[in-house]
Amino acid sequence: MIIDVHGHYTTAPKALEAWRNRQIAGIQDAALMPKVSELKISDDELRESIETNQLAKMRERGSDLTIFSPRASFMAHHIGDFQVSATWATICNELCHRVATLFPDHFIGAAMLPQSPGVDPKTCLAELEKCVKDYGFVGINLNPDPSGGHWTSPPLSDRHWYPVYEKMVELEIPAMIHVSTSCNACFHTTGAHYLNADTTAFMQCLTSDLFKDFPTLKFLIPHGGGAVPYHWGRFRGLAQELKKPLLKDHLLNNIFFDTCVYHQPGIDLLTTVIPVDNILFASEMIGAVRGIDPETGFHYDDTKRYIEASTLLSAAQKQQVYEGNARRVFPRLDAALKAKGK
Amino acid sequence: MIIDVHGHYTTAPKALEAWRNRQIAGIQDAALMPKVSELKISDDELRESIETNQLAKMRERGSDLTIFSPRASFMAHHIGDFQVSATWATICNELCHRVATLFPDHFIGAAMLPQSPGVDPKTCLAELEKCVKDYGFVGINLNPDPSGGHWTSPPLSDRHWYPVYEKMVELEIPAMIHVSTSCNACFHTTGAHYLNADTTAFMQCLTSDLFKDFPTLKFLIPHGGGAVPYHWGRFRGLAQELKKPLLKDHLLNNIFFDTCVYHQPGIDLLTTVIPVDNILFASEMIGAVRGIDPETGFHYDDTKRYIEASTLLSAAQKQQVYEGNARRVFPRLDAALKAKGK
Repeated sequence: MIIDVHGHYTTAPKALEAWRNRQIAGIQDAALMPKVSELKISDDELRESIETNQLAKMRERGSDLTIFSPRASFMAHHIGDFQVSATWATICNELCHRVATLFPDHFIGAAMLPQSPGVDPKTCLAELEKCVKDYGFVGINLNPDPSGGHWTSPPLSDRHWYPVYEKMVELEIPAMIHVSTSCNACFHTTGAHYLNADTTAFMQCLTSDLFKDFPTLKFLIPHGGGAVPYHWGRFRGLAQELKKPLLKDHLLNNIFFDTCVYHQPGIDLLTTVIPVDNILFASEMIGAVRGIDPETGFHYDDTKRYIEASTLLSAAQKQQVYEGNARRVFPRLDAALKAKGK
Repeated sequence: MIIDVHGHYTTAPKALEAWRNRQIAGIQDAALMPKVSELKISDDELRESIETNQLAKMRERGSDLTIFSPRASFMAHHIGDFQVSATWATICNELCHRVATLFPDHFIGAAMLPQSPGVDPKTCLAELEKCVKDYGFVGINLNPDPSGGHWTSPPLSDRHWYPVYEKMVELEIPAMIHVSTSCNACFHTTGAHYLNADTTAFMQCLTSDLFKDFPTLKFLIPHGGGAVPYHWGRFRGLAQELKKPLLKDHLLNNIFFDTCVYHQPGIDLLTTVIPVDNILFASEMIGAVRGIDPETGFHYDDTKRYIEASTLLSAAQKQQVYEGNARRVFPRLDAALKAKGK
């Protein structure tokens, strides 16, 4: 079984974006604010948006199940206040739930949170709990920078975030640490802000003792861990300067990396330096990089090809990356699969 | 000949830091502001600080010449106003000049600029010109984020920076794109901010047509290019989405990477994906990571060992990385060496 732990609903029917644009207009002029009930997307529209896109590609490439969350760049937590984010998160999560209900063998949900800059993350817990308990979602996306590139929140190691971690531990769900659109002109969203956030989050954990307070907390760092594996020697050395334990003991019981690295040498580096237990298959498809690599003739984001072509991983290790690790890091996913006899 | 293109004066006598602390105190209380003349460091003190540190390690590891600039984390352009930065840059550059004068076969200068957040970069040109014309410096360090982690300046592709580029082109000097201390609690200085800035700078160039305006402008991206080589497929794919030329044509006549990557797999990735013409030997020694890697028994930042051990580079290619590329990217370095018959 091949589980892709990083998929977003990037192909939602246009009505969603249109509603969001009206919501954004409504922030300035309350008379323009649309009601939630004004957004109408039929099951057929959902089906088509998935069958012709993600599901078609999953069949073509040979993956079975995608952990599916709202489009990351559209979370845009910096827009409006908590109420704006709360309404938007409710809508986006519900759409992912409907997709998972329509395609129960191929999609299972992960939630976006109604984060808002300067607002206590505790306010996200109701939506989080609903998604896990009522919708059967198996994880969340946690945005370490709801300001969208201004980095005004405290580091992930700060007690500010502890209410979310307490709930994650209670519900046995991991968080993918995933920022949204950058509204800082310095940072291109998918080419700089995403990767920077991955590196930043890892380093925030490295300098802290967060996982002493939460020994079972699990973070998935997307995009192959940003710059981290490429600079693994630097991070090992920095941990040493800071008198921290070896990274293996200090962080790798709690931090995992996905395989959203879009070329063979990158995947080979990842599997060389990061223990196989800490690598989870993912493609972030259909996402930031949709083209065909002229050097290979295949899609950049067809990451399964790189895993398949790896001469560094044994067949058993590939299966761990494809399935075993995901079932361990997402216990609710494992339980859902077992309940279906898988 | 082995040229290390990335060295900072991290081991300056304590009197320098003491003077800087007084200068910082003087920002609040003018009565405390020290005079430049109150900083007294003798040639013997300079000699000792170099002979027992950088030069000892250069001899031990077998490199010949270091391009030497003021300590990057101490530039701290966010502190005080332009005048504070100007005085501080003058002092720090002069010290590097004195080191280069004392050890002319082993050190040659690169300048820090008196940048200050929100101040026109044009104000840096006098110091830049003095360093190049009077001191014989061969390059500069350009900080894309003088705010120290708040990223309040326009991207490097903005006309804001053009006066610096015009002067660089006129004087035939490249810039290393190097941030300083982070005063944003989210970003660890050497573990996140440095690497993020490298990735950010590359992406700012990728999305722009900067090198159409300045076809001979040269940027050196330190720390092995941040996350860029590890995500080379992503960047190739993003350029393709943006209808830019192949990265080779779009950026690699103007952008170069150093070898400050502190483990063998990282260096091997760098040399696998980046053309050898674009890789310049460097160690940033004595810098962020000073320890001995327990996995190898050698210093993390002894990057020459990784180049030596590379099975991917031929002897001729290693010589290019060690010397040829540096002489091409830093034409004033080449001229200075030729003037000495080297």
